[in-house]
Amino acid sequence: MASKSSYECFDINLGTKVYPVIVGDNLLQNSIFLQEHLASEHIVVVTNSTVAPLYLQQLNSSLEGRCVQSIIIPDGEQYKNSTQLSYIYDQLISFRCHRDAMLVALGGGVIGDMTGFAASTYLRGIRFVQIPTTLLAQVDASVGGKTGINHAEGKNLIGSFYQPDAVLIDVHTLKTLPEREFRAGLAEVIKYALLQGGAFYDELKMLLESGIDASTPKLPGLITTSCRIKAEYVQSDEREHASRALLNLGHTFAHALETYTNYETWLHGEAVAIGLYCAAILSVRLGHGDSTLISDLKKMLQAAGLPFKIPGTINLDRLADLMQLDKKIKNNQLRFVVIKEPGVCYLNDSVSAECLQHTLTMAVKGE
Amino acid sequence: MASKSSYECFDINLGTKVYPVIVGDNLLQNSIFLQEHLASEHIVVVTNSTVAPLYLQQLNSSLEGRCVQSIIIPDGEQYKNSTQLSYIYDQLISFRCHRDAMLVALGGGVIGDMTGFAASTYLRGIRFVQIPTTLLAQVDASVGGKTGINHAEGKNLIGSFYQPDAVLIDVHTLKTLPEREFRAGLAEVIKYALLQGGAFYDELKMLLESGIDASTPKLPGLITTSCRIKAEYVQSDEREHASRALLNLGHTFAHALETYTNYETWLHGEAVAIGLYCAAILSVRLGHGDSTLISDLKKMLQAAGLPFKIPGTINLDRLADLMQLDKKIKNNQLRFVVIKEPGVCYLNDSVSAECLQHTLTMAVKGE
Repeated sequence: MASKSSYECFDINLGTKVYPVIVGDNLLQNSIFLQEHLASEHIVVVTNSTVAPLYLQQLNSSLEGRCVQSIIIPDGEQYKNSTQLSYIYDQLISFRCHRDAMLVALGGGVIGDMTGFAASTYLRGIRFVQIPTTLLAQVDASVGGKTGINHAEGKNLIGSFYQPDAVLIDVHTLKTLPEREFRAGLAEVIKYALLQGGAFYDELKMLLESGIDASTPKLPGLITTSCRIKAEYVQSDEREHASRALLNLGHTFAHALETYTNYETWLHGEAVAIGLYCAAILSVRLGHGDSTLISDLKKMLQAAGLPFKIPGTINLDRLADLMQLDKKIKNNQLRFVVIKEPGVCYLNDSVSAECLQHTLTMAVKGE
Repeated sequence: MASKSSYECFDINLGTKVYPVIVGDNLLQNSIFLQEHLASEHIVVVTNSTVAPLYLQQLNSSLEGRCVQSIIIPDGEQYKNSTQLSYIYDQLISFRCHRDAMLVALGGGVIGDMTGFAASTYLRGIRFVQIPTTLLAQVDASVGGKTGINHAEGKNLIGSFYQPDAVLIDVHTLKTLPEREFRAGLAEVIKYALLQGGAFYDELKMLLESGIDASTPKLPGLITTSCRIKAEYVQSDEREHASRALLNLGHTFAHALETYTNYETWLHGEAVAIGLYCAAILSVRLGHGDSTLISDLKKMLQAAGLPFKIPGTINLDRLADLMQLDKKIKNNQLRFVVIKEPGVCYLNDSVSAECLQHTLTMAVKGE
């Protein structure tokens, strides 16, 4: 069993529900810890074909004595769809899961979002716990209760707000994460740095320059800080009526890019990296700061090994059209998160078509 | 425009959300009333192929000046499934509905449940209003925020708790309701009378004896009282952790009967009628009251033109097995609502297999 000092813990308090976010090392091997935080006699682990061989047996062993069953779905964003969701429902029914059963999402953002959505809609809602195993899911997707699946016409068009009972982040799982996915996760960390500014922005810039990988001692701290920043936004605006929308920095661009390429070209974090770059260009175009914002961000994204340019093969008119389907649209007006300076962002729903066109064109050039 | 005196209104207060239930005559023709209560510029009416020719044009006219679109699905419980739900999603996407759009459920319980579920999961939740056009939906399904679809393995296995923005009950729509459906709705009214007891139970007994139809002057009052009774339970326990479960009186039996017959033999209210009869037999078997409870209920159901016996063709072992999948199961123990006397019901999760067998056998005999 890990000693108390080996993990950090804070609560997300939504008034109607409080749940802990716990960041630590080797949590999956910590039977006492898991038995405490997975408080149900009937547990169904939902995971994918990549993560299952790595961690499912370990989790099962740690939960010995409980009725633990599992559902394994194929790995990849293209499987975050209604077919796989139906498969999860069918399995839960065949396992005769009742309202006291608990789902555990063991995997990345796809697993977390889909498991959360299944939990929110099976028997009108059963409990679930997030055990994210990718950096992206650890710093972003697992916290805050956004669940859902994709539709051929757009990302996360079907979903719900449904909070987990706990988020258990075992940083040890990052050791088996492919480097490309690790880098993709850094895009969301960079997003938090842009939202937060100050010391965190400066620290991340330095860390990126000196290189970050799964063994970097400061990594658990970066994860915890990212989760805390996200938690602040979620606590003040769970259903995204206002300030939580700032967490979508770069995402209006990213979602359109992913839809355009049918989710096949980029990992979500890579699309977010390009989206952040677009957001910086847009911000400068709108008169905020100077081109340092763009060049600094470009350096950070490059240091993280992330893409930043929109490829020249993308038809920008069609890309702009796809943005119109974004959920964040209000009164038929597209909404962008604009960076005044790192640490000061705001929502802008009056970006002109010309300004958007300029932004996309510049993002293709990448200068 | 109807004068204020022509409708009754009360609020359902859930702490996090308050919404009105309004019962009146000719509300669908009341443009000012509808424009006030359907507060969105983009309205999508979800209805079925039976109700659309009767009331869709009227509703559209009353909402002139708004962007009003409609989705029409086939009529029947067998269409409360994932295929139709996907069709609703596809239509909403093709209409480019954003978060400020509002759905209107115009129809019976199937339309209300499915529209509510679509509203709760499209873009992680948009607003919706219930305009129930069947007696069953008016007194039961439209109030309280239970939404969902059926699964081949059971009724409402997929769904959510999601409250409407308003419930608008136009009793005029009952004039076009087939008599069989009207009678089916009376089963839920009888359920409320059993839960409430006292004057309401006595009044309903008398009214049923003298005959109730869509023109009965006391009908709007019965509907309002039924909604108020339901509202009390919903307000004290929205998510059915405790007392709300009493509203399932008769429903564990009813759901199993519907699943057994693939939703094709009975209307939901008819299955509930048989379920109530089973519940009365069970209650007497458990030592509550005497056989008057059973004979009184039998008389009420017969006066309402409802079935009460389980047909001899039903295999009782298989029926009992189907009950095991009921959502209300707690700790693997089936849960029944038992009638101590009209007005005093409670949950019992220790009914023996033998006692259940006796109940079902007696309900086949119908004595």
